Amino acid sequence: MEYRRIKDQENYGEKSQTDVENQHGKPFSVGATDSVPSSGVSSTNKSNWKLKSVVTIALTLLTSSQAILIVWSKRAGKYDYSVTTANFSVEALKCTLSLAALVRIWKSHGVTADNTLSTSFEEVNVYPIPAILYLIKNLLQYYIFAYVDAPAYQILKNLNIISTGVLYRIILKKKLSEIQWAAFILLCAGCTTAQLNSTSDRVLQTPFEGWVMAIVMALLSGFAGVYTEAIIKKRPSRNINVQNFWLYVFGMIFNLVAICIQDYDEVMNKGFFHGYSFITVCMVLNHALSGIAVSMVMKYADNIVKVYSTSVAMLLTAVVSVFLFGFHLSLAFFLGSTVVSVSVYLHSIGKPQPQK
Amino acid sequence: MEYRRIKDQENYGEKSQTDVENQHGKPFSVGATDSVPSSGVSSTNKSNWKLKSVVTIALTLLTSSQAILIVWSKRAGKYDYSVTTANFSVEALKCTLSLAALVRIWKSHGVTADNTLSTSFEEVNVYPIPAILYLIKNLLQYYIFAYVDAPAYQILKNLNIISTGVLYRIILKKKLSEIQWAAFILLCAGCTTAQLNSTSDRVLQTPFEGWVMAIVMALLSGFAGVYTEAIIKKRPSRNINVQNFWLYVFGMIFNLVAICIQDYDEVMNKGFFHGYSFITVCMVLNHALSGIAVSMVMKYADNIVKVYSTSVAMLLTAVVSVFLFGFHLSLAFFLGSTVVSVSVYLHSIGKPQPQK
Repeated sequence: MEYRRIKDQENYGEKSQTDVENQHGKPFSVGATDSVPSSGVSSTNKSNWKLKSVVTIALTLLTSSQAILIVWSKRAGKYDYSVTTANFSVEALKCTLSLAALVRIWKSHGVTADNTLSTSFEEVNVYPIPAILYLIKNLLQYYIFAYVDAPAYQILKNLNIISTGVLYRIILKKKLSEIQWAAFILLCAGCTTAQLNSTSDRVLQTPFEGWVMAIVMALLSGFAGVYTEAIIKKRPSRNINVQNFWLYVFGMIFNLVAICIQDYDEVMNKGFFHGYSFITVCMVLNHALSGIAVSMVMKYADNIVKVYSTSVAMLLTAVVSVFLFGFHLSLAFFLGSTVVSVSVYLHSIGKPQPQK
Repeated sequence: MEYRRIKDQENYGEKSQTDVENQHGKPFSVGATDSVPSSGVSSTNKSNWKLKSVVTIALTLLTSSQAILIVWSKRAGKYDYSVTTANFSVEALKCTLSLAALVRIWKSHGVTADNTLSTSFEEVNVYPIPAILYLIKNLLQYYIFAYVDAPAYQILKNLNIISTGVLYRIILKKKLSEIQWAAFILLCAGCTTAQLNSTSDRVLQTPFEGWVMAIVMALLSGFAGVYTEAIIKKRPSRNINVQNFWLYVFGMIFNLVAICIQDYDEVMNKGFFHGYSFITVCMVLNHALSGIAVSMVMKYADNIVKVYSTSVAMLLTAVVSVFLFGFHLSLAFFLGSTVVSVSVYLHSIGKPQPQK
């Protein structure tokens, strides 16, 4: 099962104030009621906090249901569509949803410099980078299984947490306090502990090449996430739907490349949508919405919130799976969840230079 | 194997200053070079810090070697002495060592009100309480195995960490900061994680009675520890060797009761020291020295330091066992050790109202 990770509502007041204080663009239609008023910093912060909470909770819930849908689709025995076409469909759907949101905004507020779809080479030239990074990472994924098995890979994926934290610090030059760093190490250890099972010790036999690939993949994934945040935050006043639209256009292009590399024959012979079931459609819809939620979290919060969100989502998924699929929770899961909960708490109280 | 827990040198400067500032008694001979000078608070603090470090490191090393001796004695196939007579021997040896230290002090400094062995009913009437609590706990230990197996019991023993923290707060009324509480929960989760193995999940099937007994035993053990600290700290100027002497006298008495209850026939038929080997003697010596180290930690530091000491000792033991006995460390051990290390770090940076 593919578990992901998340964190729920968290007041990031002081950290992102500078990110959003000169944000004049209208937020995505979902959050339209939360648009930032111009009356003073404190109400901006409050509204910003509300917006963050909404997108963070949305991401948590969408990510949890994502893993549940994957289990469900496996239970239903339906998993015979080609994954690359599903990824392309997700990008196409996200693109369409962003465009729909933009059309709504154009109708109510008119076309402005911030929400126009037309762009410059200077703005758009960095947009393909995250898509390229994800493509490389996804291709590497096929080779790493020569060195590690699937459960060990799930464990190694927790390295993403550390790589995201380190790259967030290096690339975005944002500070985490000592306590927040400690919390981040705990988040990684806690998530890994929660996933422990009787075969986990095999990870320790991972050959050197496997470790190198796992670390490279964690760095690619962390870099793609942090770079996306850098792109989105570079122009705070630019409407997020325009930024999303261009990101997703390149996502479509590079997923088309992936289809050609991996599934060209299958798609040509059986058709693009072969093997799609009702659950596949639900999964595509869910992935598209979570993708948009991730972008929103990047715009209004940051990669750290995203990592916490997806971590908490992983735990929620396991708890929900007990009721839905009769899963048993292990002692390791309880211990890991405790460590993750303490990590969330420490992250929230460990803000650098708290404002009162 | 019996794993215990510990923490290494830690500056508890501000917390115990009040405990020791009017301490005129000479410390135990081991720490005689660290006796508190009267020239100002800062040198008192420094000397006090040195004393704490010495006793804490001693406790850590003695506790680690304790578990290793137990494994060793099992390897040697020698485990057929009666445990109650060994416990009695430990108390008798501690009593003798305290007396020897006192004689040395009397010779060099003369007999004073603080180091005289003669005592009042008012001073000594609370001394039997820890011994009684330990006796009840040790007797309960035989009944809990009706509900849980030995590995599950090892896991449940980590509840001691939480009970010690809670009783330390309630009885000694000492404050831990929010971060230190978080660190304490992490210590418990980390130690448990480090001990996880393929059978650990059986703990979750522990019946209600087993949980109740485990919690009662944790409370008894925590209460005995915190109560000992209260007794020792109540008279800061009283020489620790006199306090130890009286504590151990009652320890001997109640262990004699335990011999009568559990091993009367065996001792009568086979003799008191039946089945003792060289390793048994080493173990008795080690337990006696660790017991004295625990008292020293109670006098010059506190129960929290003791819990961290024994936790770190557990991890040290496992690492040393890799070299001595060819043990394999599990992924769970690495994760648990990471969490314990972060906990030690958080405890040290999370002091309430730091002094600069």
